[in-house]
Amino acid sequence: MNETGRPQDFPMTNPRADRVRDVAKLAGRPARLKRGRFLAEGPQAVREALTLHRERTAAGGAAVVHEVFASEACLDRLPELADLAQETLLRIASDEVLSAMADTVNPQGIVAVCSFVDVSLDSVLDAGPRLLAVMCQVRDPGNAGTVLRAADAAGADAVVLTGSSVDIYNPKAVRSTAGSLFHLPVVLGAEVDELVARCRELGIGILAADGYGTVNLDKLQDENAARRLGNESVASDYALEAPTAWLFGNEAQGLSDAELALADHRVAVPVYGAAESLNLGTAATVCLYASARSQQGSRVGNA
Amino acid sequence: MNETGRPQDFPMTNPRADRVRDVAKLAGRPARLKRGRFLAEGPQAVREALTLHRERTAAGGAAVVHEVFASEACLDRLPELADLAQETLLRIASDEVLSAMADTVNPQGIVAVCSFVDVSLDSVLDAGPRLLAVMCQVRDPGNAGTVLRAADAAGADAVVLTGSSVDIYNPKAVRSTAGSLFHLPVVLGAEVDELVARCRELGIGILAADGYGTVNLDKLQDENAARRLGNESVASDYALEAPTAWLFGNEAQGLSDAELALADHRVAVPVYGAAESLNLGTAATVCLYASARSQQGSRVGNA
Repeated sequence: MNETGRPQDFPMTNPRADRVRDVAKLAGRPARLKRGRFLAEGPQAVREALTLHRERTAAGGAAVVHEVFASEACLDRLPELADLAQETLLRIASDEVLSAMADTVNPQGIVAVCSFVDVSLDSVLDAGPRLLAVMCQVRDPGNAGTVLRAADAAGADAVVLTGSSVDIYNPKAVRSTAGSLFHLPVVLGAEVDELVARCRELGIGILAADGYGTVNLDKLQDENAARRLGNESVASDYALEAPTAWLFGNEAQGLSDAELALADHRVAVPVYGAAESLNLGTAATVCLYASARSQQGSRVGNA
Repeated sequence: MNETGRPQDFPMTNPRADRVRDVAKLAGRPARLKRGRFLAEGPQAVREALTLHRERTAAGGAAVVHEVFASEACLDRLPELADLAQETLLRIASDEVLSAMADTVNPQGIVAVCSFVDVSLDSVLDAGPRLLAVMCQVRDPGNAGTVLRAADAAGADAVVLTGSSVDIYNPKAVRSTAGSLFHLPVVLGAEVDELVARCRELGIGILAADGYGTVNLDKLQDENAARRLGNESVASDYALEAPTAWLFGNEAQGLSDAELALADHRVAVPVYGAAESLNLGTAATVCLYASARSQQGSRVGNA
């Protein structure tokens, strides 16, 4: 390292070098599974990965980021990334090399090779979660990433993907999370039956997001609002302020009958206009935000 | 036509025929602008296009759908589409021809050549709208389609795109609307200054969705809920139940300073977790649903 904190060895300029190809192979699932690693692309994802890396290693945990490849121009533009990346192996690379490594045409000057960050279901449930987002058979990587990002925004305690869902380490999924993959615990390969049984034991309610559901999400929200505003006598099919796991289904077919049967209630997001339905990311956002707001308590009634 | 309502002439089987190429050219903006037409792909979009076509022509309006190309298998599977399509020029085509016409690899057996469906800003404002979704410099076709679909679900009265936004007739945008393009009035090429001035004259409030906004959407919703539940004395920065036009900005940069300056308030969707922000479709959904719920009135307090 020189005084600017930059590595001094020669920049990588050969997009056909073995090391570049090894990184590029992480776009495929076999290489990811074999090595337990995936690629974060672009400044936002790399920044969040490095931040998590610093937190975990400071706490004596395992490394999250192993290698960072960046252009000089990117590090000049974003010096805080150069600082953060010093705790890892940082190599300067040409834009051509970075493009060859990345799944996107333009990784904006920086990529990072990361260890899988998912955690065990036990660790999530032991922490006493109040809001969980569960994806069942979600197949589109962009949708999975969008739901994960929405869960992060809504302050969910964790995101769970069943074994039949898309690989969240798919480059498109990672990209769609916009860094949220590194923000909250993610559980992969869950069995929905087991998950639901264990949530029940812990007093966590199970709601299925279902366009054909008989319980209207607005009604639950209105009832919750009434209680928060001091009308304790308002009854409810389900108290949204309670610890809740939301089940979200496949983007085309929704939840299966077996999955629906596991839930306490099938909850529909109301459609006020002529739309036949909401897309998965949109529906998940409305559901998770409804729970989050209800759990936050009132800003008005109790002020 | 034979007794099954199917055209009897020979099916189209040559994907290199001029007529097929003419349809395929609608994937490009120049051909769309020149002809004032675009392509709806797949059963859902075609069904919604045909339904609007029937409504408009029954009311003496201009045709929406001009030609429908479908496979025998598709019409067998979805006979209601064959019925609907009878009012247009329906041609049987091979899957190879349909794939050559469509932007998607698999248009699921049916495509329709449609006239542009956008309407004038005057017609929208004359109808006394209560909820408008305005996209300013939205560049990604998938995002534009998702916002339009969310606006439809939220029961918005119309969607407006500024001239600097993506072409909503782009095949990917049309696909992302999942048929909603044919459900609610869409205005294209609007000037945001003019739009805002005219909304003001009509008493329509202007809210800018802005991650850095100083007004919290939850607070507005809580205040609205309190009023709906009978506490009329709750003051508010802005009454969400009032007629409102929401401004949504570019997916990367958000709204420009000039656009933000036009709004009555800059409203932030609260982020409860560590996410830096919400994606455009998600944020627009939360904002439009907040307005829709507030405008719908209470289901609890007034019951």
